[in-house]
Amino acid sequence: VKTKLGILGGGQLARMMLPVATRFDLNVQILDKAGSVCQDYCAGFKEGDFQNAKDVFKAMRSCEVVTMDLEAVSYPGLCELEKNGVRVAPSAQVIGIIQNKISQKEFFSKYGLPTSKFEVIENLSEKTPQGFLKLPTGGYDGKGVISFKGDLSLVPEPFRKNVLWEEKVEIEKEISVVVARNRFKELKNYSSTEMVFDPQLNLISYTLFPARISAKLEEKACALACEVAEKLEVEGVLAVELFITKTGDILINELAPRPHNSGHHTIESCMTSQYENHLRGVLGLPLGSTKKRDLSLTFNLIGKGSGPSRVVGHEELLAEEGCFIHLYGKKECRPGRKMGHVTLTAATYDQLIEKYKRLNKVIMVTGEGDKHE
Amino acid sequence: VKTKLGILGGGQLARMMLPVATRFDLNVQILDKAGSVCQDYCAGFKEGDFQNAKDVFKAMRSCEVVTMDLEAVSYPGLCELEKNGVRVAPSAQVIGIIQNKISQKEFFSKYGLPTSKFEVIENLSEKTPQGFLKLPTGGYDGKGVISFKGDLSLVPEPFRKNVLWEEKVEIEKEISVVVARNRFKELKNYSSTEMVFDPQLNLISYTLFPARISAKLEEKACALACEVAEKLEVEGVLAVELFITKTGDILINELAPRPHNSGHHTIESCMTSQYENHLRGVLGLPLGSTKKRDLSLTFNLIGKGSGPSRVVGHEELLAEEGCFIHLYGKKECRPGRKMGHVTLTAATYDQLIEKYKRLNKVIMVTGEGDKHE
Repeated sequence: VKTKLGILGGGQLARMMLPVATRFDLNVQILDKAGSVCQDYCAGFKEGDFQNAKDVFKAMRSCEVVTMDLEAVSYPGLCELEKNGVRVAPSAQVIGIIQNKISQKEFFSKYGLPTSKFEVIENLSEKTPQGFLKLPTGGYDGKGVISFKGDLSLVPEPFRKNVLWEEKVEIEKEISVVVARNRFKELKNYSSTEMVFDPQLNLISYTLFPARISAKLEEKACALACEVAEKLEVEGVLAVELFITKTGDILINELAPRPHNSGHHTIESCMTSQYENHLRGVLGLPLGSTKKRDLSLTFNLIGKGSGPSRVVGHEELLAEEGCFIHLYGKKECRPGRKMGHVTLTAATYDQLIEKYKRLNKVIMVTGEGDKHE
Repeated sequence: VKTKLGILGGGQLARMMLPVATRFDLNVQILDKAGSVCQDYCAGFKEGDFQNAKDVFKAMRSCEVVTMDLEAVSYPGLCELEKNGVRVAPSAQVIGIIQNKISQKEFFSKYGLPTSKFEVIENLSEKTPQGFLKLPTGGYDGKGVISFKGDLSLVPEPFRKNVLWEEKVEIEKEISVVVARNRFKELKNYSSTEMVFDPQLNLISYTLFPARISAKLEEKACALACEVAEKLEVEGVLAVELFITKTGDILINELAPRPHNSGHHTIESCMTSQYENHLRGVLGLPLGSTKKRDLSLTFNLIGKGSGPSRVVGHEELLAEEGCFIHLYGKKECRPGRKMGHVTLTAATYDQLIEKYKRLNKVIMVTGEGDKHE
């Protein structure tokens, strides 16, 4: 008899859980709108809205365990499932805390976990100090955040009321620590991953694993990430995004209670992938080894242009040793959309960066209509 | 626009191709009977009989490339596809040669490839020398083969006419070399894998990678396997099963023009799995690196008892480092049926064998009705 596992959201993260679900022989049920990238790979795919409580309850009530590939799912739906004896992992409580940036910050405060100074601003005014303004919900990938320098006229309407204000900190490096935990309190962390930004575009260029930081900072970062996972009582994986400040402090930026971009590389560069450890964690199974197998670099394939998606340069990359391409199967390309990622492995950071510079120019996902070739 | 790839046969080998097909964003069509283990993971699953020419043609005619997860598919169906412009990879000709043990042997003779002495016996008689008798088609996993010691009365009817006779050779070791090739004649081989047998049961206990043989024999074995792949003009992967005789000769035993049991370990222990290289090969893409990442040992999970399948000891194995479980999702357990496999990685052969001895006792797939726990 197969364990029935529900996944809210059928995006690329759920898609990358599926090979593990196959190996573990699970009966997977996925809820998302028609055309999502899991639909063709999952007989238990159900059309519906994961932000709608009724859809969530109806699609998932027969599951033994329900997890998610994003945190923006219906909180009342999760509560209803729990009330009816379905194990939600991570729990409704965890999702409730994390899906709202204000309650996330308040959680850090409550447990004395280091994070940048913040305030909830009911009415933004010229007197509000400079800093970042964040919408409590709905933001992702840099959306829902603006920089505030005192000029109200530059602030869009939604950021003027009941917004989260955060102090600007001088950042030396951004890293992420992915932690796995199960209901039996077993806890394992991967080494930290470094986010490397393009200084011109201020967009992430690639992630490097493990992060190029001192052993002391590494130890501190991993201990902090584990503490967060324990305090939160999360099940599955939790990505803890951290700032290392110019003064050498570590501050928690944000949490993601699910597989995360910064952990894609674990598929190739660690003994157990974050996707496998997420499923192990939510199912209450023993966690897999998080040991490093190889140094790695991961970069996203960001859509260029609009229209039916087309991959350029795929073959050239396949000819390269230690180069792993993951296409997400999104039919429509849009500028800025995450269409896939590439993980590189090599013996040294220099080799990784050389490879990245060479290969990043070769591969592209584009809309079929335009002339990017 | 996604490449449409057809797979004849939806067993565990096709199932293990699917994660690669997902990453490569292919449109996969699989033909097999209802209930096969790929059905729940493939929107393009089609019910039918891969040994029926009409079913094969109907299900696969719209594909750009058609491959298979076993060689016992309809040869006329493949020819019909080729006639209609569908690329069959490996080609109908290759499958025609391999699916008949007599034509396989004749192929070896034609190219002077070393293999044990053989003869086609029209009518078996008491005068026929001692040796093995093989049915030309339909055999697998030791089925379709008997040992002949001169007593006709012990020989079942099907083995008495038009049977393949093979000389008995004194075997020191059995190994397998998996080779990948594409239509552009690119060719790569994995190191050889050793088959380790239980001396009592005369059944395979596990495979070891790489095989414990001299560098000279390794070189000779790999060169021979590559020569076979070239002469055959195979596309995709080809497993070349070899005997190393007591006198130090290498003889070809049998060929499998598809991913093979002896290559399961490549998922964890090599840079590119045999499943990925099979798809790269049949699609005419550059082949992936076949380099070793780790030593490995693979053992099959063989069904014990009959009834709805149930896995015992799964959790204990998951707690072990370097232990990768693959369940095939077969609903019904039968004694002797391949229900899954486990690959172990470690730093030394001794560690692998110690792990195997310990863990092989822990995990079992059984029919739910019986009392194996």
